[in-house]
Amino acid sequence: MNVDGQHYRTIWQTTAGHVCIIDQQKLPHQFEIIQLTDLESAAIAIETMQVRGAPCIGATAAYGVALAMREENTDDALNEAVNRLGQTRPTAVNLHWALDQMQTALKPLSAPDRAAAAFTLAGKICDEDIENCRRIGEYGVNLIEDIARQKGRVNILTHCNAGWLACVDWGTALAPIYMAQAREIDLHVWVDETRPRNQGAALTAWELGQQGIPHTIVTDNAGGHLMQQGLVDLCFVGSDRTTRTGDVANKIGTYLKALAAFDNDIPFYVALPASTIDWNLRFGSEVPIEERSAEEVTHMTGQTATGSIEKIRIAAPNSDATNFGFDITPARLVTGLITERGVTEASEAGLLQLYPERADDNV
Amino acid sequence: MNVDGQHYRTIWQTTAGHVCIIDQQKLPHQFEIIQLTDLESAAIAIETMQVRGAPCIGATAAYGVALAMREENTDDALNEAVNRLGQTRPTAVNLHWALDQMQTALKPLSAPDRAAAAFTLAGKICDEDIENCRRIGEYGVNLIEDIARQKGRVNILTHCNAGWLACVDWGTALAPIYMAQAREIDLHVWVDETRPRNQGAALTAWELGQQGIPHTIVTDNAGGHLMQQGLVDLCFVGSDRTTRTGDVANKIGTYLKALAAFDNDIPFYVALPASTIDWNLRFGSEVPIEERSAEEVTHMTGQTATGSIEKIRIAAPNSDATNFGFDITPARLVTGLITERGVTEASEAGLLQLYPERADDNV
Repeated sequence: MNVDGQHYRTIWQTTAGHVCIIDQQKLPHQFEIIQLTDLESAAIAIETMQVRGAPCIGATAAYGVALAMREENTDDALNEAVNRLGQTRPTAVNLHWALDQMQTALKPLSAPDRAAAAFTLAGKICDEDIENCRRIGEYGVNLIEDIARQKGRVNILTHCNAGWLACVDWGTALAPIYMAQAREIDLHVWVDETRPRNQGAALTAWELGQQGIPHTIVTDNAGGHLMQQGLVDLCFVGSDRTTRTGDVANKIGTYLKALAAFDNDIPFYVALPASTIDWNLRFGSEVPIEERSAEEVTHMTGQTATGSIEKIRIAAPNSDATNFGFDITPARLVTGLITERGVTEASEAGLLQLYPERADDNV
Repeated sequence: MNVDGQHYRTIWQTTAGHVCIIDQQKLPHQFEIIQLTDLESAAIAIETMQVRGAPCIGATAAYGVALAMREENTDDALNEAVNRLGQTRPTAVNLHWALDQMQTALKPLSAPDRAAAAFTLAGKICDEDIENCRRIGEYGVNLIEDIARQKGRVNILTHCNAGWLACVDWGTALAPIYMAQAREIDLHVWVDETRPRNQGAALTAWELGQQGIPHTIVTDNAGGHLMQQGLVDLCFVGSDRTTRTGDVANKIGTYLKALAAFDNDIPFYVALPASTIDWNLRFGSEVPIEERSAEEVTHMTGQTATGSIEKIRIAAPNSDATNFGFDITPARLVTGLITERGVTEASEAGLLQLYPERADDNV
């Protein structure tokens, strides 16, 4: 999508062969591009959330393997790269999906062929992600259009950032919104700020603003009230891992919004490419939930009136904090899953209707 | 309760006749006492949230009338004071309850008697609030003790600040916790940070810390996950206005926690003095919900590593925000109301059992 009118992906290879990412830690205050030079810089980009969002993490991991192969193309180096990258973030399953793709394709190749093949495959993973997101957008936009026909303006609530910054382009939860804009549907997005890292206020609001889509930031506390007041027609969120029964691991707080949507009879959709589905897990309770640093809760970083970036402590000075990154929204609260193959019920039957080839996966 | 081991109320009259408050805007970074000198300074203290919390707002409004009477003791001055203070915050009903008390008592008096009577009555309102909170604590602690007997350590989740800083002393939701500490019950409090103004991370954590009660700050998004994981035994929150049918207007986000508690079979109690009950309202949907400045969402204030207090922008620079201050938790999600007369069902029948004298109030 666009930044100041110019088209960008979240990760790309330059003609000189470098791998570039947008430093999402610096947004929305600064737009900076970073070069990933080796395996370690890719791993750190994922760990420190210079890139985040399940599909974008997967794409970065793929390029991380390619960068490792350029340095050393042995079996050991391949295994080491997959291990290092696999330990960066525990919850998103796309990471492991992308690493599996890379390892399976590269292992049989002779060592000298691996680096070139790795870059080609990483590029292909990115292109496929874009195509999947575009399809998610096309399926999802119909849900928006149905409501627009009845109500005129459509109010959509989203949590965290599941836009193009979380993917390679388009996004998952935001792809239908970008498609709706292209169809000139009148819409407005409620953006949950998404504490502690504020991906909503910082990233979703920024990308919607860059694209010219009407939106309003609200605190994570506000969504229930908005729904009670009839101010939300539809909820769209992304997913970091979805089980084969349709339970959804997504940014902490997603479950609370799903409860409120259910209580107020508002459709709650989760948008995800199949790479986000963990076919080997039955229940959300089996998904490992990342715990991150307490400082993300007790401190915040932002821009002062004079333009400098400052970190401030917002909590009582001697109090500790706990910081779970994700929660599980049970399938019973999810109206439907929007995938690149269509919209389906959040259940094993629903998912297997779209992905029959997964019927016999090990669970 | 205590600050650095010394006992304080949130508002008090000095022997010299001045009215003092703790500047809650400066907490937890600075502990500062402000003198209220006249009607306007009391009104501004409420508006700018130097004082906040329904009972504390009521007490401050009472002293605001007394300060006005000291300057001018006419009928006009009395009406003007009640009007000015009545417009400071729309949601908390204690404000109007306290102003009604003052007006009813002062109007029949001869003008020269009003100032002295007003200070006496404001002091009495404070003393009564303390006694009510103490009783709420004594009724509420039994609920904690019951769980402690079964489980050992009790984990309690609270939202916003309904501690002594929200009242005159003791608090509402936190009073049972302070009583439990006195009974040497092993407990731990999950403190919702409570965006946008972070009364949880800033005030609740600070007062629990000052009192030596084990606690952990979490983002507002985290409570659902904590409950799913079995890490919460009990929820205690306060109320800014409760209808006669038991619907509860409280800090924005309370409804989301009540939904999660209900979904996970966790008792959800609301603690409130009767002054918080609006006997004339039947349904929560009739409660006016305050909208505050967008800047409370897009900016945050805190302390830098060098100790200075800075305001930073945390949101995308061209994005707007909406800031509703309260939401309504329907009575069906409330396990019980803890008042100074006991614990009762959140329903008209439940409330009238404790307050039979209200059966015939205008609705």
